[in-house]
Order: sequence, then structure tokens, then C-alpha cells
Amino acid sequence: MSTDVINIAQLSNGGSSVHQIQHRIDILNKWNFPLGSKILEIGCGQGDCTLVTAYMVGDQGHVTAIDPAPVDYGAPMTLGEAQDKLKQSPIGDRMTFYQSNLGEFLDSSASEQVYDYAMFVHSVWYLPSADVLLPMLAALRGRTKHLLIAEYSLDIRGNIAVLPHLLAAISQAEFNSRANALDRDDNIQSIISPQMICALAQKSGWELEKEDIVESPEEQEDARWEVHRVLSEEYSLRSESSGDASRQGYATALVHAVAESTRAIGPSPKLRTLPTWLGSWV
Amino acid sequence: MSTDVINIAQLSNGGSSVHQIQHRIDILNKWNFPLGSKILEIGCGQGDCTLVTAYMVGDQGHVTAIDPAPVDYGAPMTLGEAQDKLKQSPIGDRMTFYQSNLGEFLDSSASEQVYDYAMFVHSVWYLPSADVLLPMLAALRGRTKHLLIAEYSLDIRGNIAVLPHLLAAISQAEFNSRANALDRDDNIQSIISPQMICALAQKSGWELEKEDIVESPEEQEDARWEVHRVLSEEYSLRSESSGDASRQGYATALVHAVAESTRAIGPSPKLRTLPTWLGSWV
Repeated sequence: MSTDVINIAQLSNGGSSVHQIQHRIDILNKWNFPLGSKILEIGCGQGDCTLVTAYMVGDQGHVTAIDPAPVDYGAPMTLGEAQDKLKQSPIGDRMTFYQSNLGEFLDSSASEQVYDYAMFVHSVWYLPSADVLLPMLAALRGRTKHLLIAEYSLDIRGNIAVLPHLLAAISQAEFNSRANALDRDDNIQSIISPQMICALAQKSGWELEKEDIVESPEEQEDARWEVHRVLSEEYSLRSESSGDASRQGYATALVHAVAESTRAIGPSPKLRTLPTWLGSWV
Repeated sequence: MSTDVINIAQLSNGGSSVHQIQHRIDILNKWNFPLGSKILEIGCGQGDCTLVTAYMVGDQGHVTAIDPAPVDYGAPMTLGEAQDKLKQSPIGDRMTFYQSNLGEFLDSSASEQVYDYAMFVHSVWYLPSADVLLPMLAALRGRTKHLLIAEYSLDIRGNIAVLPHLLAAISQAEFNSRANALDRDDNIQSIISPQMICALAQKSGWELEKEDIVESPEEQEDARWEVHRVLSEEYSLRSESSGDASRQGYATALVHAVAESTRAIGPSPKLRTLPTWLGSWV
């Protein structure tokens, strides 16, 4: 385990798993922004990435982290509680949290005129659809020097242990693409591919500089979370109580495909989280 | 290549590929019905399986093959032309073809009162949804001694070369589950899992006797056909001209997932067709 992981885990005081911290370090290392950078993080959630970023920009840097979710969202710790805890860490003054969507935030007096970097780290698949991403990328033109996006790749890269996570993502995105979806609690609302992200960024006037792939740490929990969610009884009941018959059959078959893919890994399933694709634009 | 394949390929006179014939032989060998069996084949299409079955039941056996598609359906050879050609083969008198759906056929004077076997060989995924299968299985109670179903499994069994076919099937089923789908030309209309088929058969009063898995011959063309279809420009255009924005994003991401999965196999992709699951009921 690297010194960075140990240091950040201590700052986090148990708020984030070391695997989640390691994954954020791996991503930010690829982006390698200079000490002192002023960063806008879009869709920060509980602040896992905010903390790692604050650590890595040093004491002259700053992360402004926004998320439209209500501060009482999330369990067992709410978003507000998690963010408050981070603010109380020794590097808490390098982070500012706002409950806001991007458009409103950029229009507000709280926003800097220009950030060094604006980044989405695993927040794109929380968006209801790609259409919502387009105006966000357009609004960032002129308001940040660099645009950075990290999101799962749809390419399992030949690793069969990743297939259950891919299929679980496809299943969750299927449910959330239904017009009559009853709730929007899934961690994955949509599966927006790297190609789609690149097309939207180009349409918004961004020029792609670099792409990368970061493999997830072996123990990263996301695959296990998403697969267990899709295979839960609650998930199937929710699906059955919404939508028409042909969608239902399709949805049920997707759940069965997830179940089969976990069985294929063997008696002691070692699920692996999808690789993460990184894009940088100027 | 087995003697059976060579013999049947000669009877087919180029109408079916040897890989398609081999696959039907592999399935029918598992079912191993006695010489002289009277068989009802549901959803025979061009008659690939009808020919193999007719060969295997011997000169005292017979296959009654039904399909609701119009006789002028299909290209480059229509259903009617393909079936006429088979009728002209030396074992043509062991086959009878009817353009009919199952309910109408069983009610007609053309149907035997009781068949030895009724079988669906790769015809279940042509159905628009699992709901259509239920009344068919119910209608067969008392009209056949055995029920046999062969359909693709959703389990790629750890073989990464099969993944593109699975994802292409998921993509086609997604399109055809849309209420506003513009046409229904896909080979795969729905992905109905073995578990769903078993549940429907049980609901219709059938008792499961045996399950099996048959791997597809390495050169079997289905994976290549379906993947190429999904990756064609025509397919994406059709998808884009139908449906709402969130479905569209989802559908586009599925096409990208198919593309990624083919790239993962390497520079000279060797796509492999999904394994086939077999169920037998009494």
C-alpha cells in the first residue's frame, strides 16, 4: 500500500475504504495536475474523490465540490455528514462543498470565473441520460482550462470476472431508461460509453487531448455492490411492479444473465470492478 | 466431420451450412428420440432442423414442421422455396410443412391428436416475449408425449469469444422490447432465459426431466451474423429513428459494448456462438 493511501485513509478516518482511495489515487495520478491547482469537482457525492484531490493539490490548492443531491441523502452516513467529517480533517480547508447543480453553481457568486480543472469522477453514470451531460459540458466552456472525465469503460478487456459488473450496469440502466421507473435509487442510472462522452464533448467545443484506462484495484467493492443489488429480491420486485410485459421479460432475462455470469466465475466468486476510462480535454 | 453431417449436407444440397447441420445433430443426439418418432417442430423457419430431424427419425418417422411466417419471407431464398427444396430431397416425404401458428394448427384437421415429441429448436427467441410462449406450452399439454426446447443460454461459460454474441442478443432484444419498434426483422426478438422457459413450462403443467448444454461448433455463423447486424449503420439508424432519448442513449451504449467486446477478442476476431441449453419435459 502506498504512503498516499495510508495518509489519506488516516485523514478519512474510516469514511472511505482503502480500495476506493487507491482507485481515486490511480485516476488522479494519470491526470497529474500541479500542486496548487484550483479544481471544480462535479458530482462529488460523499466526497471520496474530493478528499484524495485535496490531498494531492497540496496546501496551496483547492477543490470546490458540488452535488445536487440533498445533504440528507445516503445511508448509513448522509452526504452532509460525510462532507462535514471531511471538512473537519486537517486538510478540510482545501475543500468547499455546495449542494447545487452545475448550471446554478456556475451562475452563482460562489463560483470562480475560471478553474484550472473541472472533473467528473464516476459521476457521469449517475446522470439520467447522455442528454443531460451535453449542456453541462457546454456550460463548462470558458469556465475551466481543462475538462477531465473518469467513468467506467464498457470493455471488460477479456477479464471474465468483470462481466457480472458490466451486466449489472446494463440491467440498472435498463430500469432507469423506463419512462415509468418508480424510483431512481440505483448507483447506475445510465451507461454512457466513452465514445458517447467524447462525441458530446466535441459537440460542446472541447478538444480531446488524451485517453487512458485505469484498472480497478482487485478488492474494489463496486462490482460486488452492483451485482448484489441486481440479484436482490427487492430489485426484481421493483422491476415487476413497473412497466409493460415485454420490458419485464427483457429485464428478468438481464437479471438471469447477471446470475449466470457470477456462477461462471466459480464457487467462490471474485467479482472484479469494470476498468475506468479517462478523458482529458482543453 | 461425421457421416451424418456429410449425408445430410448432400440431402440439403447446399441449403444449409455444415456447421448449422452439425449443431442440429448435436442437439438431436442429446434428445436421442427413437427411429419412427412422430415429431411436431414449432417455428421451423427455412427447415434446417426439419431436415436433420427427418434424417434421424428414419423412414418410419415423420416431422410436421410449422412456422407462422409467410412463405415469401426470407432472403436470398424464401421460406417457401427452402421448404420446397427440402421436400424434393430423397427424404422429403418424411417432412410436412404448414404455414401456421401453433394454436391454429393444433385446432386444424392437419394435426395429429398426439405427437411423440414437440420441439422448439432456436425458435423461442424469435417470439416477441415470454408471454407468448406460455399459451403455446399450455396448448401442447395432452398433444405430445414429450416437450423439447433448445435455445441459447445466457451463460457464456467463461469464454470471452462468446461475449459479443451475448451482447448483440441483449441489444436486439432491447430494440424489440420497445413499444414503438418500427420493424421486427431481427433474428432475436427477445432473450428468454432457461429459467424463464422452465418456469413457464412448469406453469403449463409440464414436468422437467432433463437439462443439457450443447456448445456451438466453432465455425457456427450465428455470432458473426448477429454481431455484424448490430454493428451495421442501418441498425443504428433504425434505433435512432425510434423511441425516446433515454432509450436511445441506452441502445447506443449497448452497441458500443458489442463493439468493445469484439475488439477485446483481438485483431482477427474469432467470434463464438452462444452455448445452447436443452430442456426435456413430460
